[in-house]
Amino acid sequence: MLPFARVAIIGMGLIGSSLARAIRETMPTVRLTVSDGDPAVRARVVALDLADDVTENAGAAVVDAELVVLAVPVGAMAAIAAEIAGELAPGAIVSDVGSVKARVLADLGAALPGVEIVPGHPVAGTEKSGPDAGFASLFQDRWCILTPAVAGPASDRVAAFWTRLGARVELMDAAHHDRVLAVTSHLPHLIAYSIVGTASDLESVTRSEVIKYSAGGFRDFTRIAASDPVMWRDVFLNNKDAVLETLGRFTEDLVALQRAIRWGEGDTLEALFTRTRAIRRSIIDEGQDTEEPDFGRKH
Amino acid sequence: MLPFARVAIIGMGLIGSSLARAIRETMPTVRLTVSDGDPAVRARVVALDLADDVTENAGAAVVDAELVVLAVPVGAMAAIAAEIAGELAPGAIVSDVGSVKARVLADLGAALPGVEIVPGHPVAGTEKSGPDAGFASLFQDRWCILTPAVAGPASDRVAAFWTRLGARVELMDAAHHDRVLAVTSHLPHLIAYSIVGTASDLESVTRSEVIKYSAGGFRDFTRIAASDPVMWRDVFLNNKDAVLETLGRFTEDLVALQRAIRWGEGDTLEALFTRTRAIRRSIIDEGQDTEEPDFGRKH
Ligand SMILES: NC(=O)c1ccc[n+]([C@@H]2O[C@H](COP(=O)([O-])OP(=O)(O)OC[C@H]3O[C@@H](n4cnc5c(N)ncnc54)[C@H](OP(=O)(O)O)[C@@H]3O)[C@@H](O)[C@H]2O)c1
Ligand SMILES: NC(=O)c1ccc[n+]([C@@H]2O[C@H](COP(=O)([O-])OP(=O)(O)OC[C@H]3O[C@@H](n4cnc5c(N)ncnc54)[C@H](OP(=O)(O)O)[C@@H]3O)[C@@H](O)[C@H]2O)c1
Repeated sequence: MLPFARVAIIGMGLIGSSLARAIRETMPTVRLTVSDGDPAVRARVVALDLADDVTENAGAAVVDAELVVLAVPVGAMAAIAAEIAGELAPGAIVSDVGSVKARVLADLGAALPGVEIVPGHPVAGTEKSGPDAGFASLFQDRWCILTPAVAGPASDRVAAFWTRLGARVELMDAAHHDRVLAVTSHLPHLIAYSIVGTASDLESVTRSEVIKYSAGGFRDFTRIAASDPVMWRDVFLNNKDAVLETLGRFTEDLVALQRAIRWGEGDTLEALFTRTRAIRRSIIDEGQDTEEPDFGRKH
Repeated sequence: MLPFARVAIIGMGLIGSSLARAIRETMPTVRLTVSDGDPAVRARVVALDLADDVTENAGAAVVDAELVVLAVPVGAMAAIAAEIAGELAPGAIVSDVGSVKARVLADLGAALPGVEIVPGHPVAGTEKSGPDAGFASLFQDRWCILTPAVAGPASDRVAAFWTRLGARVELMDAAHHDRVLAVTSHLPHLIAYSIVGTASDLESVTRSEVIKYSAGGFRDFTRIAASDPVMWRDVFLNNKDAVLETLGRFTEDLVALQRAIRWGEGDTLEALFTRTRAIRRSIIDEGQDTEEPDFGRKH
């Protein structure tokens, strides 16, 4: 049995459109209504046949949906929730895919009193944006974290939905989610944005040199630092405490490493560099990355 | 005409064995002698037919070579140079592939007085090590930087050699090379090692959570942080000044970003995140990376 027969997605960017494609592929009989404010995006949705109906306004898209998924930047969730509040069908469940959860849980709760809210975060993505960047297999074997205030029939149904899409589901406290993701996603992005900024502002090394010789490691950081600016601005504004806490830890460790370099402590360096290999091994064993060197880039 | 008819490679790890494969492919008539201290590595060299002769001692490998390439960690170059000093044929050119150049230029100069020295650094690699990790196309369309004390016929021949291997060649002052690579390679590796270390030492987030949810960005850092510990220890010990200088700049910028997050300065964040996208664009345009999202990882 389908967990939901009628689904609405608000926002047809990378994640919204991937979700639409994955639903089409795994649950083709679901009636799918989507909305997006940008006429160019709506035209692409029609051209790519990503939904049964596409609307301009979020309110119009949700009227008979059993599940509504908000796929917009974290900072835009509250306004969208306010827009759909008066239009939701009785019993509708509202979920989202935002990268920060405590704030979204609070925002949706405030805007949608009495509505079943099951915030979600598929830990999967790329550095690209928009409806053409999406693909159906994005969530395959990735984790989707659900952070409802209380677990129950509503979160069970949303869990069943993500399982059908090929994801593995985990329930977690929203605040804990935000601490975990601060480490595995938010801090890496912050560092990548920062180092790319630093590299492009030096006087002793030109920008064209940075670009030419980027294959030594830098290019990987530029890929992450090519992610959507608004999405990431909203992540940092809305997960401030956990990001600052993790960043503080990182800075301490980096200063210790700086000291080891300054004093020529080769053993300290080698010990750390050996320890980090084990983590990589575990990530490959857990199926969260491929073993191919450099991801099989053509050299 | 071949730039060199007889070549010796000392060290058959990732880079040495890739070089051997590339020579076999692009200059099959070159007589290739290699050496490696590890009997298991020598056995692999024979099994994979990577060279015409393979020796245990570096001295024995170089006796009639016109070009000798040292492909060992930067900290091992001086000892190898001392080992081969009495064995070199008259007119032999000594080069290397080390990731740091000022120290190698000084070390080789001191150990090999009167010998033509043309230090080199192919800006290409992966996180893997050893003879089985090498492949012939590693240097294709990548830059190889040569840092001789003075340019002349010897550096011209080494340049012609790398061009035959498919690389693009650039001459550079050794100290400048070390500043450029501190930015495009050494700092990124340092940061990656550091963040992976931080993430595995937290109390509030378990290591298994870090591994499970690594697809949000962290896994890319773990790949870089899986690189060879000894090679990277030697890089940081031998390019201390440039690395500490660049690290200082990075830390300053990161602190500014931390402040912007603390004070909720969304515009500052968005402006930086937008600027970094342009650098990514240029790297793809320059052919130093692929445009494929996430390098076409299977999700
Ligand atoms: N990218 C990732 O790797 C990733 C991974 C997991 C979760 N997420 C989360 O998924 C959500 C969507 O991200 P995405 O990568 O799909 O972004 P995207 O490709 O940039 O798409 C963003 C979508 O949000 C809409 N939108 C932007 N600002 C809005 C506003 N103020 N009001 C209403 N709608 C607005 C856009 O509408 P228009 O078409 O009108 O611009 C577009 O449909 C975010 O919450 C993000 O944190 C992203
Ligand atoms: N990996 C990269 O991405 C990359 C890129 C550009 C340049 N480089 C440079 O290339 C050089 C080789 O790196 P690699 O990646 O090929 O490393 P690798 O795969 O780990 O191989 C290292 C080689 O050096 C030998 N070696 C290690 N310590 C030695 C010592 N104390 N005395 C003599 N030989 C020793 C090893 O011999 P055994 O077989 O006996 O262990 C092995 O042949 C380094 O200078 C590195 O900076 C690396």
